[in-house]
Amino acid sequence: MSSRTDADSGIDLSHLLDTAYRQARLGLEEGGIPIGAALFSADGKLLGEGRNRRVQHDDPSVHGETDAFRAAGRQLDYSSTIMVTTLAPCWYCSGLIRQFGIGAVVIGENRSFQGGEDWLAELGIPVTILDDERCVTMMSEFIESKPSLWNEDIGVVGDEA
Amino acid sequence: MSSRTDADSGIDLSHLLDTAYRQARLGLEEGGIPIGAALFSADGKLLGEGRNRRVQHDDPSVHGETDAFRAAGRQLDYSSTIMVTTLAPCWYCSGLIRQFGIGAVVIGENRSFQGGEDWLAELGIPVTILDDERCVTMMSEFIESKPSLWNEDIGVVGDEA
Repeated sequence: MSSRTDADSGIDLSHLLDTAYRQARLGLEEGGIPIGAALFSADGKLLGEGRNRRVQHDDPSVHGETDAFRAAGRQLDYSSTIMVTTLAPCWYCSGLIRQFGIGAVVIGENRSFQGGEDWLAELGIPVTILDDERCVTMMSEFIESKPSLWNEDIGVVGDEA
Repeated sequence: MSSRTDADSGIDLSHLLDTAYRQARLGLEEGGIPIGAALFSADGKLLGEGRNRRVQHDDPSVHGETDAFRAAGRQLDYSSTIMVTTLAPCWYCSGLIRQFGIGAVVIGENRSFQGGEDWLAELGIPVTILDDERCVTMMSEFIESKPSLWNEDIGVVGDEA
């Protein structure tokens, strides 16, 4: 497990990732796609947590980040919030982060997938990649075991990914 | 009302917009933000329709496009689908369109708001703007009457928009 402390806030980012990871494990136990996320305030208070529910709710619109965003309820200002996710955000979730002005992004791992993380960084949003081994193992094992389901979740047609 | 027929398919795009517009009007009657959307197959068959539910469900994650996307259920290939929306898609919804490879976008109006439409067009996704007067009137009246709610929905802090 990686350990990283944000230099500005002193918050242990690995500790924040633990919440997202627990969500992902829950999703896996439910037979779902193991991606979890959590939205925190700048001081590390949990605002909302969630997980991909494509399988569980038969709902393609619920990614980890959108579920955590929903769970946090209506907020008037996201600029000091931190979105923590087990896997690099796809374009859908990157668009969410951009539109609502979420202040920072912490990514468990980006080896299994990459979406809009560079785009967000270029827009000036701090992006931290923890390269967490638990996340890498969880996701790579899942993709290997259920490639069709994974491709469905990222809009890839067929099994070519 | 604008009238426009897609040259390739012969589909009346204004007719498709009617479905999204009805959804937006429903949202307005519910006290919500009047943005509606609908996902169609290439031959004009309705796959799913929806509307912004921030107010109705107290849920910031449900934009018109994400609601229509959800209503269409799990699809394996979006490449021939058409996302029709009363208002130009925000970055969140533009990210959805990109990630899932939605084939085309039809926009009721883009005078009240612009998000990722140019970005989508640059990515090669056909974007048609109908500049529909009903949509312009509905949205401009709403923004004038409830600026704080509108700003909340697009992540703008305060009333400066």
